[in-house]
Amino acid sequence: MFKKILIANRGEIALRIARCCRELGIPTVAVHSTRDRDSAVVQVADQAVQIGPAPPTRSYLNAAAVLQAAEQSGADAIHPGYGFLSESPDFADACESLGVTLIGPPASVMAELGDKTSARALMTRAGLPLLPGSVHPLSPEAAEELAATIGFPVIVKAAAGGGGRGMQVVHDRDSFLDDYRRTQATAQMLFGDGRVYVEKYLRDARHVEIQVLCDRYGRAVHLGERDCTVQRRHQKLVEETPAPELPVDLTERMGRSAVDGALAAGYVGAGTFEFLVDPDGNYYFMEVNCRIQVEHPVTEMATGIDLVREQIKIAAGEPLAFTQDDVRPRGVAIECRINAEDPARDFAPAPGLVTEFVPPGGPFVRVDSHVHAGYEVPPNYDSLLAKLVVWAPHRDEAIARMLRSLAEFRISGPRLHTTVDFLRQVLDDPRFRTATHTTALVDQLMDRR
Amino acid sequence: MFKKILIANRGEIALRIARCCRELGIPTVAVHSTRDRDSAVVQVADQAVQIGPAPPTRSYLNAAAVLQAAEQSGADAIHPGYGFLSESPDFADACESLGVTLIGPPASVMAELGDKTSARALMTRAGLPLLPGSVHPLSPEAAEELAATIGFPVIVKAAAGGGGRGMQVVHDRDSFLDDYRRTQATAQMLFGDGRVYVEKYLRDARHVEIQVLCDRYGRAVHLGERDCTVQRRHQKLVEETPAPELPVDLTERMGRSAVDGALAAGYVGAGTFEFLVDPDGNYYFMEVNCRIQVEHPVTEMATGIDLVREQIKIAAGEPLAFTQDDVRPRGVAIECRINAEDPARDFAPAPGLVTEFVPPGGPFVRVDSHVHAGYEVPPNYDSLLAKLVVWAPHRDEAIARMLRSLAEFRISGPRLHTTVDFLRQVLDDPRFRTATHTTALVDQLMDRR
Repeated sequence: MFKKILIANRGEIALRIARCCRELGIPTVAVHSTRDRDSAVVQVADQAVQIGPAPPTRSYLNAAAVLQAAEQSGADAIHPGYGFLSESPDFADACESLGVTLIGPPASVMAELGDKTSARALMTRAGLPLLPGSVHPLSPEAAEELAATIGFPVIVKAAAGGGGRGMQVVHDRDSFLDDYRRTQATAQMLFGDGRVYVEKYLRDARHVEIQVLCDRYGRAVHLGERDCTVQRRHQKLVEETPAPELPVDLTERMGRSAVDGALAAGYVGAGTFEFLVDPDGNYYFMEVNCRIQVEHPVTEMATGIDLVREQIKIAAGEPLAFTQDDVRPRGVAIECRINAEDPARDFAPAPGLVTEFVPPGGPFVRVDSHVHAGYEVPPNYDSLLAKLVVWAPHRDEAIARMLRSLAEFRISGPRLHTTVDFLRQVLDDPRFRTATHTTALVDQLMDRR
Repeated sequence: MFKKILIANRGEIALRIARCCRELGIPTVAVHSTRDRDSAVVQVADQAVQIGPAPPTRSYLNAAAVLQAAEQSGADAIHPGYGFLSESPDFADACESLGVTLIGPPASVMAELGDKTSARALMTRAGLPLLPGSVHPLSPEAAEELAATIGFPVIVKAAAGGGGRGMQVVHDRDSFLDDYRRTQATAQMLFGDGRVYVEKYLRDARHVEIQVLCDRYGRAVHLGERDCTVQRRHQKLVEETPAPELPVDLTERMGRSAVDGALAAGYVGAGTFEFLVDPDGNYYFMEVNCRIQVEHPVTEMATGIDLVREQIKIAAGEPLAFTQDDVRPRGVAIECRINAEDPARDFAPAPGLVTEFVPPGGPFVRVDSHVHAGYEVPPNYDSLLAKLVVWAPHRDEAIARMLRSLAEFRISGPRLHTTVDFLRQVLDDPRFRTATHTTALVDQLMDRR
């Protein structure tokens, strides 16, 4: 097992990882920006190293600073969390050269899957169903021709993108060339890589993803699905497992597809295969996320498997201690992301001082949060304040429990706005309650307001 | 289903019940003393009725005031929680006469099981193994003779007692008559009933109890056991399920015994059969608790069954929706009771203002607490501040998770003392870790200090 793990992240996920390491008896090093010097993970970790000023590019995205902190503190492994450096093949490469284990898949796998076009090609070969679209980068004119063949609407996506950034839906041929070129420019700006591709856009789709775990010895299992259909601009707000009202044989086939894809990629660690499911029950591979997901707790609550613990054990070379048959999800788990955003101002970030923070408690309620009364939410990072996760034997009970927990949650501050009340509206919506919602639900709710 | 439920309790259990009612969509009435007027349950409940001043006899134990509040608020059911009026057959009788459903067994069952001597007689007939001792009240001299026959040490217990109060261990014949008479006097004072009985005292016993659920239609299931061996003066401090290092066939036989006993008693609702287990693996019936237990969450975390919800559904006349085969406990759950007590001063109550209250979070951690920063712990009631419950697939992982969570828990105030550090010492003790501890563990730890 590792002698010391450096946590190359901040916020709730850094705390999540530190908690896990504490339970495993592994000392931890927290790295932090000047802004985060009093953060929860800094309190909880055994050591803390300041790696730069508040802007992410100068701290959490500064690979050299993170690696230097690992070297100085004697950490033999790095957990990258999500975001920041977690899906950077360059960072993974640098870790490998320095002999520090990055808790995640090998750099080569991360590179192949991180490039959406090569990932699409690989998964096609592995037999996974894909939406009609381009596999290789095309000229704007060839892409326009393809889009017309597929039929509008289509979506133009950055090959280097992910996490909902660098994509544009195009509704008709007239605007295609402009939109295509604009997405190329955006992709170049965001990812330093202007390659984009075209895919059929599904209007009434459900977003369903499969969690996989693969050890270094060719063993792969899936841990069931998560439905992440409630999104706003491709950012997930509510996630749940199992996917409600989807036939079990469909999600089982998706699970097997994800395992096939993971084995074909030589995947190691925890990964997520994202799919779209159309109203006819067809599913289409979208992308692989080579890291722990924000929404991993719903899978944990249903399966009883601690995903971060499994990540660490796999990275340390332990074989998976269970088989596919041992994975028996139970009941329904739902997660709500509580963000420091103002729904009335189009979800604009609304950071500031938190003067009151009283999380809900009681049966089958989990709160993952780095926030406490007196915490100042910095404007420099994402707006996630807390993940509220509940479990119940049945979905209606889980919804009732989530509504109760949201009603109990007290987070306030003089300038702070949160998504708590908006989430109550989502959970209480008849479309959500009957699981007839699509990725359009949040827009539908915002139009009503 | 009930139209409105009155919660005849305070503290964490009142909040627990209010949360459950909220999830079931049932309006609630909180009753409270003047001291508790700003309590969490008062905030959360739909209505609140002040029923008297701080001393329990003048509020939470004042049956007339509680019943009046039920009548005035239009509540058609009362949840009594634990302690206070929860096991009073007189109160149950009064509810029945008024046509208000008391969420618990019928008054007649409560009366028969509440009297430990009639309970012993009933359970003997139902085939449950009992420790050698008296079934009917005896004169001091006859009791002394019996004690000598059984062999010392023996324990003298109040027939009307329970919850660890009104009992005295007698180590030799010389002090027997004095101790017997003193326990009679204590019993008279505490319970208005001086009857006592004698039982063989097991020194190295484990305290193991079985949770049962029985509906109104003669269906009874058990939900596995809880080990409550970590006690101080017969007060439980740490509880867990399953009972560690006990043979599964033993706990299964205990489960069947509890179901037999419940059926013989005509039990309805959630109840607990308490047993002692000797080092040779023999088990002995001690008593039935006719109410929800403080430690019920460990059973909930292992089985996924919400016991308070089941209590309410059973009281409303619903049949049990599952069979014994459907009850499949998973993994290990441990609860620690965090009390406002000073271990250094022999666990003397140490109430006062709470200025900091930051509960732990993360995977498989549950906190049931009515406390928040700014809360003043009143000196009038029991000293329970919070129940911290964790779950993990295996016991060593659950212990690590509990130690992590205890280390994270921040509860402090200028005069407040808590048992948090003492609980860390218990969980970290090699005897507890190897499950070779007995009810003597806390005394052994205190001697060491």
